[in-house]
Formats: sequence, C-alpha cells, structure tokens
Amino acid sequence: LVEPRKLKGFRDFGPAEAAVRQAIIDKITVRAERAAFQSISTPAIEYSEVLMGSGGGETDKEVYQFSDQGDRLVALRYDLTVPFARFVAEHYSELTFPFKKLQIGEVWRGEKPQKGRYRQFCQADLDIIGSDSLRADVEVISLFAQILDELIPKPFTISLSNRKILSHILSCFIPNLDPESEKSALIALDKLGKIGATRVTELMKTNDVLGKGDVEGLLKFVAAGEKDAVFRLRKLSPSEEFQAEIAKFERTLELLKLNTRGLRCKVAADLSLARGLAYYTGAVFETLIDGFENIGSICSGGRYDKLVSRFMTEELSGIGGTIGVDRLLVVLMELGMKSQKQPQFFVAVAGQAAEAYAYDICRTLREAGYICDMDLKERKLAAQFKHANRLGIPRVITVGDEEVAARTFSLKDMVARTEAKAVPFANLLKLAAESVG
Amino acid sequence: LVEPRKLKGFRDFGPAEAAVRQAIIDKITVRAERAAFQSISTPAIEYSEVLMGSGGGETDKEVYQFSDQGDRLVALRYDLTVPFARFVAEHYSELTFPFKKLQIGEVWRGEKPQKGRYRQFCQADLDIIGSDSLRADVEVISLFAQILDELIPKPFTISLSNRKILSHILSCFIPNLDPESEKSALIALDKLGKIGATRVTELMKTNDVLGKGDVEGLLKFVAAGEKDAVFRLRKLSPSEEFQAEIAKFERTLELLKLNTRGLRCKVAADLSLARGLAYYTGAVFETLIDGFENIGSICSGGRYDKLVSRFMTEELSGIGGTIGVDRLLVVLMELGMKSQKQPQFFVAVAGQAAEAYAYDICRTLREAGYICDMDLKERKLAAQFKHANRLGIPRVITVGDEEVAARTFSLKDMVARTEAKAVPFANLLKLAAESVG
Repeated sequence: LVEPRKLKGFRDFGPAEAAVRQAIIDKITVRAERAAFQSISTPAIEYSEVLMGSGGGETDKEVYQFSDQGDRLVALRYDLTVPFARFVAEHYSELTFPFKKLQIGEVWRGEKPQKGRYRQFCQADLDIIGSDSLRADVEVISLFAQILDELIPKPFTISLSNRKILSHILSCFIPNLDPESEKSALIALDKLGKIGATRVTELMKTNDVLGKGDVEGLLKFVAAGEKDAVFRLRKLSPSEEFQAEIAKFERTLELLKLNTRGLRCKVAADLSLARGLAYYTGAVFETLIDGFENIGSICSGGRYDKLVSRFMTEELSGIGGTIGVDRLLVVLMELGMKSQKQPQFFVAVAGQAAEAYAYDICRTLREAGYICDMDLKERKLAAQFKHANRLGIPRVITVGDEEVAARTFSLKDMVARTEAKAVPFANLLKLAAESVG
Repeated sequence: LVEPRKLKGFRDFGPAEAAVRQAIIDKITVRAERAAFQSISTPAIEYSEVLMGSGGGETDKEVYQFSDQGDRLVALRYDLTVPFARFVAEHYSELTFPFKKLQIGEVWRGEKPQKGRYRQFCQADLDIIGSDSLRADVEVISLFAQILDELIPKPFTISLSNRKILSHILSCFIPNLDPESEKSALIALDKLGKIGATRVTELMKTNDVLGKGDVEGLLKFVAAGEKDAVFRLRKLSPSEEFQAEIAKFERTLELLKLNTRGLRCKVAADLSLARGLAYYTGAVFETLIDGFENIGSICSGGRYDKLVSRFMTEELSGIGGTIGVDRLLVVLMELGMKSQKQPQFFVAVAGQAAEAYAYDICRTLREAGYICDMDLKERKLAAQFKHANRLGIPRVITVGDEEVAARTFSLKDMVARTEAKAVPFANLLKLAAESVG
C-alpha cells in the first residue's frame, strides 16, 4: 500500500471549503468584469531568470525553484505580478494601454512552510498597466474595496502609503542614504506593526548608514498615525517635488474615501507601511479585517513603474494588487460562511425497469435549474431514503413499475412532511416549483 | 534586459481565449452542480510515489517529476484521477458514498512537448466513487454528453467499450494470455484507429504470446463497427460471466441513448477502443467531434475499480472522465466562439475637478451590472474618445466642470449616432437601460 499523504505545506479543499473558495473567485470575477478588467492566464512554471531578481533578495529565497528534466533552472511562480510583467512585454504589440487585467491562479513558495503558512495558495490580481495617473491607483484600490465589502461581513481598513514619500521622509531623518540602505530601512520600517519600535530601532542601528540618522525621530514620525499625517508631511520639507507627491497622496486618499462611501471600508494613511517587495515605486496598500488582524493583510499591492523595463526598453507604469483568496477563505470559514449547494431532489428508483424513467425525471429537473441526485447503487428503497436523508436532501421522488406504466411519480417532502402520490410527469416542474417555493 | 519568454510547451492565454476558457469552465460547473456533483481541489504537487505506478509504464514516463528543495522526489500531477484516489483514501471517513466529484484544474506533462502538445493544460473531471452499478457509468457519461451538447455547436460521438469484454474477446482469439501480454494487446488495440490494422498486427506479432493467437481474427472482430456488435459478442462465447457483462454493456448503451435523446450526441459501441491507462477495469469511453477528429478525444474516461486500493484496504469502485478543457478551447476558437465581454460605457473626464463625479457614475453603472470603463490617463477629451473607439466601446459619457456643477452628464451613442446632453444624474440608470436596450 502507498500511504495517502500530501507534501507538507500543501492542502486539499473538500466540498465545503471548495464551494466558498469558488464563491470568492466568482464574486471577484463579476466585479472585475464590470469594471472592464480582462482575464488572462499564464503558466505555473517560468524560467527562473524571469521570476528572480525583481521582488528583492528576501522573496528570491522563497521562490520554489528546481531543475527540470532538461536541466533548465525553472520556478513555480511566486506571485502573479512578475509573470504579468513578462506577459505584457511579450505581447506588447497586441495590447491596448492602459490594459486592465484580472488574473486568478495558484502561486507557490519554496521555503520550509511555517505554521499556518502554505506552499501553494490562490491569489486574485487586478492590475492596470500603461498609466502613471493616480486615477489608476484609485480605480484599482476602490474596486478592491467594493469587492471586499461584498465578500466580508466585517469592517476592514485599507492602509495607504507611498514609496516616494517614504524615501523623502527617510532622507529627512537619515542623511546620505544609499539605495541599499534605503532598501534595508524600508524593510525594517515595514516590520514596525509586527515587531514594534524597539526592535526596528535595533535593526536599523546595526546598519552603518541608518545608525547615524535620527532613527527615533523617524519611527516617531511614521508611527504617529493618520491624524494630521498630511499636515505633518507638508511641514517636513519644503521640496517642491515632495510637496507635489504629498498633494497626489492627499488626492488619492480623498478619492478613495469618496469611492468607498457606504462600504464597511475605512481608508487610512499609514506611513509606517512600506511593503516588502523591492519593485514598488509609488502607492502601496494593505488591508486588515477588524478582528482578524492576526491573519495579516488580505489585499495588498502597489505601484510598480519599472517592473516591465526588466524585459523591454519601453517604459510602462503599472499599479496592481492581490486578494489572498485562501487567506480570505480562512476568514470566511471562521465566520461560518456556507456556499455548498445542497441537492433539492433525490430520485429513488424501485427496480431496474424504472431506471430510464428516473434519468428522465433527473434530466428534466436539472435542465430547469434544480439540483437533483438519484440512486446510483441499485439499493433497496429504504436504503435509498436513508442515503437521501444522510445527504440532507429534503425531497424524495419515487418511481417504480406502477409509475413507469402510468408516467407518474410520488414526491415526499421530508421537511413539510407531505406526500403527493401518482402525480403525472407533465406536472413535474409545476410541483417542483411549488415545493421549492 | 531579461528576455520575456516562456518555457517550451507552456502557453499564455490572452483575454479572448481566457474568456472562452472561463465560459467552458462555468458551463461545466453549473451542469455538474445541478447533478449534485461537489467540487474539490487538490495540490498541484504530490509525492511521486502517489502519482506513479497506477497509469502504467507509458504514462509514468510522461509524469513531470523532479527533486524539490528537500530532495524529495515529487511530481506535478499528471491527471486529476490519481490525486482524487489519494484524496478519497485520505478523507475516507469524512465522505458519504457514492461521492460525486467535480474537479477542474491544471495538469502537467514532463515529456518533450510535440507539436500541438502542451506541458500544462486544464482538465475538468467528473467522478462517482463508491458504486459499481452501471447507473453510475450512465450518470457520468450522460452528464458529459449534456455538457458537451451545450458547449459545442457540432455533432459529436461518444464511443463506448469495456475492458472486461475486451479481455474476454482477447482470450477467445489469443489463448493463454498472461496479464503483461494482455496489457500489450490492449495498448496495441487502442492504436487501431490511429495507425491501422497492418501496423497493429505487426506490433502484436512481435510479442511471443500474442503472435501465436489469431491476431487477424481479433482485429477483424473489434473493427467490425457498431452494427450488430452486441449480437456478435453474444455469439463469441457461451461463458455466463461474459454473457452477463454483455447484458450490462447493452443496457449501458441503451440508457445512454435514451439519456442523449435530442442532443447532438451519437452514442456508439466501439470494441477497438481500449484507452491507454492501466487502471481501467470496466467501461471506457472517448468522444470525437465531427470534423475535429484530428484533435483527438475531447472527453474520455472509464471505470477504475481498483485505483483507491493502492492507498487503502477498503474496496471502492469508481467511474470517471475528463473534459480536455484546453483541447475543447482549440475547437471553440476555431469555430469562432467569442465570450469576451466588451465594455458598454466609457466615462470621459474633462479635467480633474470632474474625477470624483466620474467615479460615481462608473460605480453606479457597475453596481447596476453594466460594464463601464473610464479615462485613467488624464488625457485630453479627443484622446479619450479615440481610446474608447479603439476598444470598441459604443457609448461615451462625458463629464466636465459644467456637468459637475449641475450634476448632469452627456451620453454619446457611437452606434446609434445620437447624443443626449445635460441629462440629470438621477436619470443615469434609466437612460443606460434605454440605450443598452
């Protein structure tokens, strides 16, 4: 015997979970389509060189990489963003820009899985490529807010930050910042919410350049919360470029607040948010659900204005984000969401002679949109009723020799505790409609 | 620059193809749900020992196998059937049998890709496990017929054969057949349609055991076509067991014909059909579309009564089949099928002051179910109209300072060549409904 086991970090989804997962995907798809986003699909496996080197060293380590049968270094995709950049470069001449993209698919991680972390999970990405306007940022983030509002019966907060503004803040507190130290600072900063100011300060002090700056002042500034954030930013530096970025940041926040009126969504500036990925160049955002902060962000993203230029000389600005479908699934299962469709009818078959007729009844009900099961084991009637009962099917239609001869059926409603006998086949859909109500 | 390229044998699906692909998946899902099949999902990667050794030597060679970071021998799934058997064994106590399963997902091949063959493609599987009744065979195959009839605007033929009957036929023409030779004979037989009788005869003659049998007689018998097939089978051998199998085969055919009344589907017995996979034990079937025979079978499967017993001691009979989603996609694209949804409205924005109002219009239209795009590049109005035109969007709503002040909008219908000006926002959905019709 072979042991029926899975690799560590991989999951099965049984019917209850799979149904909720599908409901999430369907709702995202419908909303994205209405906003004129178009679906694409890319391979699970890419050349390693395509995937590595754009997310930064931390993510490169987590890429699920291996040698294939032809000894090529390949990798299962880490996210849907980098393959999308490859897609855009490869199909540049076929696309009309700005191109609005939806992609839903599995991604993989190669690192040893930690508790609650998986090696394969589903992501849903919305991206707009070919626009550097904040209108695209607002379009993507508002749409996420509208989707999440439909999906989650809880208040949630979208936090917005901006890499350009963060760079400028950093340079105000820490002079002579080289690109490598800036990257280290951003990564450290991004951990503020998780590990706290003391440990972030320690992290920064180990870096020669950062250690010489006013780390305490920096952390105090970015952690001061949303209140007056824009006001404090304005005072920080008179640089015209900086002031222009602040104006855009403020405008983005304002439009997002307008676009999320009436939703369970709060939009907040959070300058302690930096996001771990190296490719972000402008707006970055994350989403926490009230009471589920420990699960982490369920929708994150940002602007990546240089990602496509790894693959081609043309400049193409982009903004995008990801709903962590399987992370959201955990939340919705905890909240008791159910999407699994229960059969409405069960056709019990008394003897082989009634088989063809039973299939006819099933087909008629199914074509009318009802969910209908039938006996597939040639069991005795009592066992068929027991099976229907165990599956929680509320209505059992019975057919046997008599019913075949007269083209009738009987319908037993287990919930209403009623029974209709010798109903003509012609009345099947009428009775079904009455019974289901 | 990194070259934006994919691995050989892998594909991107752009919006036009991805939309048709999604339409295929959606239709399969709806039909399967109504027939009380339940969705599950399993990992892309499994331990090699789980996947290897059940499909037979020919398929083992094609498995996409590699060593992971922990030096475990793992593989990307070859099909959805073997992972399903593992799933059933692992979750045995949680399931109610017969268990009716739908799984749609990607599968991979490790062999060098040939022309028109891919290394990753999508399959949709329906299985019923926990029943050895022919009712389950009929349920699965009829449902495939009904799904394909909805999907394909062409006549198609489902060919039915049976491994138990083939074994008996073989033993009638070739005495003293050991299991290995029987397997070789089945594999050779299955190639009859592709390579012809002469080459199949050659193949069989190279085998010591087969070569001694009446290979010509065998091929003549199985290739004689559907007419009188059951009659000729009855005459072949008086064995009671064989006669009982023939009766079941005939009954399956009869019920399938009844269940496909009114569909573009022909059901035919074809004793030259054996299917390549080693795990089949009873009914086997394939589906060819008229005029697309060169594409091969787009829906195949069979009964596998011993697959789960690789993983557990309990016996669980199963029947299942697969729609080759990407193969069907090729057919539907060739037939000119389109599913990509075109935006119905484009909101042109004259100046930043109208931005918030433009988002409002978009949101209102989208929430009412319309597909609506808007300017995301802060272009001049003429450029916005040009973009809408290039995307083929038939209606352009324009908002500027005046419209914001008066809470109105103008709507230009490019097809009807009409224009409505200064329409109050309150009339947006009414006008939209009239315009879309």
